[in-house]
Amino acid sequence: MEREDLEMAITNTIENFEMHVNEAFVAKAEALKPTLFHEVVKPTRIVEVVGTVDDAKITSSEDASALPRVILATGGSVVLDFGNHYVGRVSFKVNHHGSPQDAPVLLRVKFGEVLEEIVAKSSEYHGEISGGWIQEEYMHLDVVPTTVNMPRRYAFRYMEVEAVYTSPKFQISLAEVLCTTETSAERPKVEPLPESVPENLRKMDEVALKTMEDCMQLVFEDGPKRDRRLWIGDLRLQALTNYQTFHNTELVKRCLYLFAGLTQNEEHVGACLFLEPELQVDDTSLFDYGLFFISCLSDYYNETDDRETLEELWGTAYRQAELGMRRVGADGVVTDTPDWWCFIDWPPALNKQAAAQGVLIYTLKQALGLAGELEYLEAKAQLTNDLKKVTKGALNVLWDEEQGLFVSGANRQVSWASQVWMVLAGVFDTQRNVELLRHAAEVDPEVKMSTPYMYHHYVDALIQCGLKDEALACMEQYWGSMVADGADCFYEMYDPEDKHFSSYGDYTINSFCHAWSCTPSYFIRKYFA
Amino acid sequence: MEREDLEMAITNTIENFEMHVNEAFVAKAEALKPTLFHEVVKPTRIVEVVGTVDDAKITSSEDASALPRVILATGGSVVLDFGNHYVGRVSFKVNHHGSPQDAPVLLRVKFGEVLEEIVAKSSEYHGEISGGWIQEEYMHLDVVPTTVNMPRRYAFRYMEVEAVYTSPKFQISLAEVLCTTETSAERPKVEPLPESVPENLRKMDEVALKTMEDCMQLVFEDGPKRDRRLWIGDLRLQALTNYQTFHNTELVKRCLYLFAGLTQNEEHVGACLFLEPELQVDDTSLFDYGLFFISCLSDYYNETDDRETLEELWGTAYRQAELGMRRVGADGVVTDTPDWWCFIDWPPALNKQAAAQGVLIYTLKQALGLAGELEYLEAKAQLTNDLKKVTKGALNVLWDEEQGLFVSGANRQVSWASQVWMVLAGVFDTQRNVELLRHAAEVDPEVKMSTPYMYHHYVDALIQCGLKDEALACMEQYWGSMVADGADCFYEMYDPEDKHFSSYGDYTINSFCHAWSCTPSYFIRKYFA
Repeated sequence: MEREDLEMAITNTIENFEMHVNEAFVAKAEALKPTLFHEVVKPTRIVEVVGTVDDAKITSSEDASALPRVILATGGSVVLDFGNHYVGRVSFKVNHHGSPQDAPVLLRVKFGEVLEEIVAKSSEYHGEISGGWIQEEYMHLDVVPTTVNMPRRYAFRYMEVEAVYTSPKFQISLAEVLCTTETSAERPKVEPLPESVPENLRKMDEVALKTMEDCMQLVFEDGPKRDRRLWIGDLRLQALTNYQTFHNTELVKRCLYLFAGLTQNEEHVGACLFLEPELQVDDTSLFDYGLFFISCLSDYYNETDDRETLEELWGTAYRQAELGMRRVGADGVVTDTPDWWCFIDWPPALNKQAAAQGVLIYTLKQALGLAGELEYLEAKAQLTNDLKKVTKGALNVLWDEEQGLFVSGANRQVSWASQVWMVLAGVFDTQRNVELLRHAAEVDPEVKMSTPYMYHHYVDALIQCGLKDEALACMEQYWGSMVADGADCFYEMYDPEDKHFSSYGDYTINSFCHAWSCTPSYFIRKYFA
Repeated sequence: MEREDLEMAITNTIENFEMHVNEAFVAKAEALKPTLFHEVVKPTRIVEVVGTVDDAKITSSEDASALPRVILATGGSVVLDFGNHYVGRVSFKVNHHGSPQDAPVLLRVKFGEVLEEIVAKSSEYHGEISGGWIQEEYMHLDVVPTTVNMPRRYAFRYMEVEAVYTSPKFQISLAEVLCTTETSAERPKVEPLPESVPENLRKMDEVALKTMEDCMQLVFEDGPKRDRRLWIGDLRLQALTNYQTFHNTELVKRCLYLFAGLTQNEEHVGACLFLEPELQVDDTSLFDYGLFFISCLSDYYNETDDRETLEELWGTAYRQAELGMRRVGADGVVTDTPDWWCFIDWPPALNKQAAAQGVLIYTLKQALGLAGELEYLEAKAQLTNDLKKVTKGALNVLWDEEQGLFVSGANRQVSWASQVWMVLAGVFDTQRNVELLRHAAEVDPEVKMSTPYMYHHYVDALIQCGLKDEALACMEQYWGSMVADGADCFYEMYDPEDKHFSSYGDYTINSFCHAWSCTPSYFIRKYFA
């Protein structure tokens, strides 16, 4: 996608957008607002950081207890390492040295989840999405000594403080730098892994748990640094992981009621929700994200047996199936368009049609399961009929017998995403799916997977096909590589071949603690422990 | 002065500095803390500003009522003109347009006393004194709409707001921009000028009154934008002007007790005082500024007949005379040194010796007057003796009969400042002083006057010599030129031949509302009304 197209995509919104509000659902969601838990953490080290975004590194360090002896004059700075990723609010003392303070201090305080954010100059940011996400503040201190209580929440491991200006007559130093963390996750609820789980998976699980923990706030946020809101694609994977780890089913229920309580035109479930300035659904509408409401409800019901919620939210779920089928043409295939109609994954070249068809079939099957549970015969009949149509459409239009792969769009593109979603959709039986995945691995389609989100679905597909060894190998290669690179949390995007890849045109705006990347804990605890 | 010398000068501090506190004096000063008065003012115009620091100008404007219709997206900005100089705190509403806010807003808000500060890029500031004085803030707004209440006090006429970042999906606009002003000056106490005063002097008086008003805060500040503290050189001229205008003698008394209550080593009165984080005298020590305590007390007593204060503060005043005499050598002349030992005026080349000698004689005479009033015979005798010595020294060492001018320093420099202060000191009688001033005007010494502070003393000297027409002409030419240039308040520095002159290496850090420039109201009301 060219930059202009990406901007078009990002700004793509529904025409004549209107929000439908189900007050009862919203009230139920609000009653489930979780408690936030806090812990006070401190920096562990003072680090020297050098390099550019391409080669940032720590060249030396000393214990954080030396901080009060670091005297900063105009242009002086210090980088603190908190030793792990945290989400919270920061306070610190600024002490005074030298002659009386004859000018206001100008401080620059920057937070980075990764070192690259610290070495990057904000003035050189060139990404397509808003640089408003850069966690950097300038503040004047008219009087030092003082205590600075920063009001915003940050997601970070590193904190840089620069004395942009003191004066020739005085200097400052820092002390008592504290971060009061925020999360709705409760660590004690996570069971320890059995001793049989090997060290590399234990480490991977720990990073995934930290990712989950830092994204669990008043809702399941997608990233505590960037976006900071409830996206349904992320919610689905967070909820699955949550069932294996923090067991906070109430938070999933809250998010389900929020999505059902705040829908778009024709009660389509939106791609994401905002909590402030008031609860509202975004005007971004995505084909796959709407359908995932069905998945979220199905997974929730499977976990909880909460029949009351299933009954109340069934209407919203079924509505998504109906709206999904509306996009299906006479040939039984979802209509492809050039706008940002479906997410699937970030590669700019990716054609979404086949994967979207896979998501449709996958979620219609879940809807059928729920209709069966509820014994809604009419819905069952309709969904059975729909499934026949779209499964037939997939085979007739999207399956390329000669290549032995699914193709997508007018140009019959072959991508990894198409194969993975068709496997998950179960268009073929398990044996043929195994062959399809192995053939895809041989061919290694040019349009690759670019996010942990898409890799999750690949691993899931492998496991569904009984290919647990391959699934584990993929996890070790992909998430394991992030761990080896020193990730404290799992990143939003990761390409082991191009480690500074960004879909936004600037690596530093990537989220380095991203909910959709947390599923190693789900896989490890469900299948490998 | 080279940059390094200037930096040395600025950072010049007393070795082994210690503050002497007279608790009773400080308590008396604190009991006199004035009430601050407030008024709510609004921008009058939205202006388009173009150019650089050398040629900033307004190209078009519209009424401020159009502001809510100015929609700002990433990079968009608006400049508001409040129509006059104000000192106060600012609040404004930020409204939201477009899709839901999908990223924090980053705002840049800059205040300027003059347009040049608005067009200047803060990142390119190159002055020697702290850029911490630049009135520019960056702030993230996580949720809009919102009301921003800026906590700091600003001195400004122009306010620029830039949406550094919104996002491709939403925009902002501003509304209800308000400034709540702060001053301890009471306008109703200022008497209207008689109708006989011509329009140009009325305008000059108005600008001077605004300067005074905006500098009158919890003390007489030197500049409400920059320094924002009590300097005794400024206090002396503010007090004189105050007696003719706002008549707040209590505020002068408070400042006298502060200076007397918080002295430096050997009870030398400091050049300036800080109010925060606690009351303290600066470690900058200046020969002339210490002696001006005598002038401030003498002027105050002449105005108020407040004998109790005179009696209480006499000891501090007399101590300054003693310390001043300590610097006098056997030749009866103050010792010259290359450090920042005396202020007088800003020209880098200015040698301070002769002018300092003039200040010493001027203030010893005032001390003698006070000693006479108090009938302190011993002090009278000592001061009489001292005066003989320094007057003789001035004539023997500093008077150059051949040139018909006073010279200063080892290189026998001829400057305007030396002549002016020797006239004010009354080393000669009035007739010879008239001749000296006329001869100086003919010669026009190379080392000129660079500030309204020095021009004040020139005008005062002319008036003391009975040269009222020349005094008026000087005022019209100098302060009148600032008025013609559109000054809302009188500037800290002004050279009609080099309008972007700065002693700090960067014009934009100059103070454009500066207390020591407010004396046209003193002269007009005392001598020309």
